[in-house]
Formats: sequence, C-alpha cells, structure tokens
Amino acid sequence: MSSKPSQADISKAYDLIKPHIRKTPLFSVSGAPFGLKQPVDLKLELLQKSGSFKARGAFYNLLSREVPSSGVAAASGGNHGAAVAHAAHSLGIPAKIFVPEISSPAKINKIKHAGAQVVVKGDRYADALGLCEAYQASSGAIGLHAYDGFHTICGQGTLGQELEEQWGGDLPDTLLVAVGGGGMISGLASWFGRRIKIVGVEPQKACALHQAMAASRPVDVDVAGVAADSLGAKRIGETGFEILQPVLDEVITIPDDAITKAQTTLWQDYHLASEAGGAAAFAALQSGAYKAKENEKVAIILCGSNVELQKLASLTESH
Amino acid sequence: MSSKPSQADISKAYDLIKPHIRKTPLFSVSGAPFGLKQPVDLKLELLQKSGSFKARGAFYNLLSREVPSSGVAAASGGNHGAAVAHAAHSLGIPAKIFVPEISSPAKINKIKHAGAQVVVKGDRYADALGLCEAYQASSGAIGLHAYDGFHTICGQGTLGQELEEQWGGDLPDTLLVAVGGGGMISGLASWFGRRIKIVGVEPQKACALHQAMAASRPVDVDVAGVAADSLGAKRIGETGFEILQPVLDEVITIPDDAITKAQTTLWQDYHLASEAGGAAAFAALQSGAYKAKENEKVAIILCGSNVELQKLASLTESH
Repeated sequence: MSSKPSQADISKAYDLIKPHIRKTPLFSVSGAPFGLKQPVDLKLELLQKSGSFKARGAFYNLLSREVPSSGVAAASGGNHGAAVAHAAHSLGIPAKIFVPEISSPAKINKIKHAGAQVVVKGDRYADALGLCEAYQASSGAIGLHAYDGFHTICGQGTLGQELEEQWGGDLPDTLLVAVGGGGMISGLASWFGRRIKIVGVEPQKACALHQAMAASRPVDVDVAGVAADSLGAKRIGETGFEILQPVLDEVITIPDDAITKAQTTLWQDYHLASEAGGAAAFAALQSGAYKAKENEKVAIILCGSNVELQKLASLTESH
Repeated sequence: MSSKPSQADISKAYDLIKPHIRKTPLFSVSGAPFGLKQPVDLKLELLQKSGSFKARGAFYNLLSREVPSSGVAAASGGNHGAAVAHAAHSLGIPAKIFVPEISSPAKINKIKHAGAQVVVKGDRYADALGLCEAYQASSGAIGLHAYDGFHTICGQGTLGQELEEQWGGDLPDTLLVAVGGGGMISGLASWFGRRIKIVGVEPQKACALHQAMAASRPVDVDVAGVAADSLGAKRIGETGFEILQPVLDEVITIPDDAITKAQTTLWQDYHLASEAGGAAAFAALQSGAYKAKENEKVAIILCGSNVELQKLASLTESH
C-alpha cells in the first residue's frame, strides 16, 4: 500500500464514513460581486459534524484502524480535537483530549460538548502534546495525525468524491482551498489530480506550503496571525507535500485583514459564521489575491465554523 | 385575477425573481437525534439574500408592480425592512425604511448596510408606521405588505416550487413552517395544496394563526416572547387565512424555551446562526411538540438568520 491515496482508497474511505458524516451542501451564489460572469460554488463544509472537514479523517481513522479499549488521545484545542472527540463519542470509543491552560473556555467547552474527556494542563501547546504522548505510551491509546498520514488524507479526500458527485461530472475550472498542514488539499489533489486547477491559500503569517514549494521540501516556518489556530502548522506534512508538489498549480498567500474582511462578508452577506481559517479561500477571491478570469468557474471550500460568536460579533461590528 | 395565487401565478413569480434571489441549499441531516429513521431535510432559507425568505416577496413586488420615481417605503426594523431595503437597492429603486427609536443599532445598521435610507423616529412601531404612511401619501412612494397581498404571497410561494424542484418529485410527508403573519405558509400551501402535510408552528406568546383557526376568522392577538420581532403579527393576514383554512393540517404552538434551545442546538450541532423565529419550526420537532412517526419523512424550513451575534453568543453560552 503506497502512502499516496488513490481514488479507490478514497472511495473505500467514503463508503465507510458516509453513514457517520454529513453530505454538506453546495451553495451556488452570484459571481457578480467578484467580477465573474459564472456563479461561484461555495462548499458548505463548515456545516460538517464537529464544525469542520476534520470529522472525515477522524471517522476514517477510527473506523478502519484497530482501536484498543483505552481508545484514542489527541493534543489539540482546535478543529482536530473537536473532530476526534466527536467521532470517538459517536462510535462509543473513549477519547482524551489534551489542551494547554491558555485555551479559551469556549474551545474547551466545545470539546467537552462533543463528548470527550478534556485534560487542561501545561503552559503551551508543546506541553499538552508531551502529556498526550506520555499518556498514549502508558495507556496504549492510539493517536491520529491531524493532517498527514494515509488514513487522514484518505478521509479528507472524500470531500473530493462528494464534490464530484454533487457537480455531476460538470467540474469547475478552479477550486480554492485553505491550507494549514495540508491534509485537506492533499486529499483533494489525490482525488482530482490535474482535472481541475487546485489553488492553495495560506495566510502570509502561516504559509508552510508556500515556503515548502519555494524550498522544494517541507521546512519549518514561523506561524502567527488571525488564522494561526486552524492554519498554523509549523511544517507541511511529508506525505501531503509528496502528493502536492507534482500537481499543484498555485499557492497564494493573503494578509490577515483580507481574512477578517472575508469573515465579515460571509456573515453580513451570506449569513454564515466562519472561523478565520475557514474564510481564507473565500478571502483569496474577494481580495483579488487570486485573479480569476471573467468566465472562470470557481469553487471555494468553506471549511470551518469553530469561531467564538462573541469574537465574530466584535469583528463584524467594527466593519 | 383571484387573490389566491395558483401554481401558475407562483411559477410566473419564480421566473421573474430567479436571477435576483439565491437558490438556497437543502441540507439533509440524520433523523436519529429526533427518533426518526429517515433523514430530516433542512431548507437553508436563512442563507437567502437579506437573511430571510422575505427577499422573495420583496423582489416580486418591486419587479411586477409599477414603482414611481419616489420608490418604496416600509415601516419595519426587522426582516421585512431588510428585505425591502435589499431588493430596492439591488434594483436601483430608492427605499425609505421607518424604524422606531427603540430599534437596536444592529438592526438599523443592517438596513443601512442593505442600502436603504433609514428614518429613526417615533417611540413605538405604530409611530414609525404612521410616519411611513404619511410619507407614502405625500411622496407617492409605494408600500408593500409584509405578509398579506397577492404579490407577497406569490413571492414567498416560490419557496415551494424551489423545494419541489430540489426534491425531484420525491416529496416529504411533512413540512414544518414557522408562522408570523402567514405569508410564507400561505405561499407554500398555495404551491403544495394537500400534496404534503403542512404544519404551522407558532410561539405560544404570538399565535395569530392558532387563534384564527379556533375562531374560524382572523382575530387580534397579543404578541410577546423571544420571537416577537419576526413572528409577532397581531393578526393573521386575510388572504393567507382564506388560503390556509381549507388545507392546513395542524397548527402547533411552542413555548419560548423550546425556541431558544433550538437556536442553541442549531449553532452548537449544525453550525447555523438562526434567529428565534427562524428556529421555531426546528423547535417543534426537537421539543416533541410535533410528534412525527418513526418512518415519517420530515422537512423543516429554517427561514431567518437576522440575529445579533452578541445575543446568540450569550444564549448559547448559557446552555
């Protein structure tokens, strides 16, 4: 078994996880606000169980790998933690999620609400990760990778198969995808190959893929900015990079203010509550950082809604 | 021309407004949380332009009636005002929206954001309405009814045609619909007739249709409670009641706490920001006020997202 998923690998994953995940809607909106003559397709993956696409990979890991009675453990106060907690709970698997003490009460509550035991300990993310690894070693609980690894990429790749079914063979020209550690985009690239133009979008302050493409290999990067909590991977995944390097058309980086503007527009004009990272691909089109041709058919994945409403309220009121 | 719209009247309206409105997605979710074996269809009409279904009726009025150069005027700080403002702005028609001084700055900003001139004057809604009517009389600007009237009901009825196209002939058994003044439900009843079971849902504290059914005629009712801003019509529309009385299966009334619980669930589990009125139909199923049979195929219209995020934040955090 190669570590690069094939379409058949992704289809197998989709068959297995389908009863557990949501088929999220495709929402066709006017392209006029972006200067386009064709409608723009928004894939509402932010309505997925646990609030992001990460539920797909989490379910596939837990459904296809052997899980010991001690269950699963993860270190994450974000979408990965919420997805693992949700998938484990709904499959009756014990889950322990380690988060650092700096995590917001809202995020901790979200993971608790998803049904996991939360261990709040340590000053920084690295401390929570250390505690998680120690727990895995002592208990036998499995971990699962937040973005790299065969099962995770297969799971995120099911988004590609689902989109293709929704498009009914009439593929768009271009798919804009936010990139953190590269799990979603490498799953999509595994499914679509070069049949559509896949464009990666990263915040300027957290651009692990952009820098890896420049260096022709994954490199460590500094991460900061408004979307660091979801897109702030310090290094693009090894498997992901192997998949992406030969097929990716373009990686675009955007400033933080384009991301917060996109979040504001998504709420005010489209009535969708998006987290910063989930709005990045939309921001690329809205800000003009991605320049589409007038007749280009563009699709955008809105991939996460794990935003604190209080925060989104102050953001949108200041615009 | 009868004042009761036919399917042909609604199709005519749909053809006219289609380029201006959004075809909102149908979102199929598991029925298991509600004890159902079939999936539940959520119609995401809360993603409609201006944040509610009212954009449909507003566009149809402005596209099919003669509009003088003085444009249109409405008295409303809610969904009707936002819809009229949005439709007028996008058609290049001047709009003046009258709102009382008690209206929240967020609602006033929403109407301004939609592109209308807002007149903030008068202590109560009745004062704003008086000012609006005086302005219409002096300027010649037209008004349009928030829920009654042929064009308004035809416009809201396009939601029925759109749903039928999305279902591709495979209609659900039951459609749960929130009721304020009765515009949306009478449009849907005009389209579907008795081909599906249409169930009206009202807050106990604002149940103009329930009381009209009991009295066999529209009667004035007191309105209060969490959804009064969108469902608080003092009297069901005359035309609407004429349409509904012979075809409606059931009108259900629900307590306010079922509505706020539904808003919380829609955000926490489905990642949708819904206003109170927009969550009422969902609340009927969730609370058990509407008792579906295990194999019943239920559809729910989520019809409005004009909620202040700050308010939704405090609501969902307290649960």
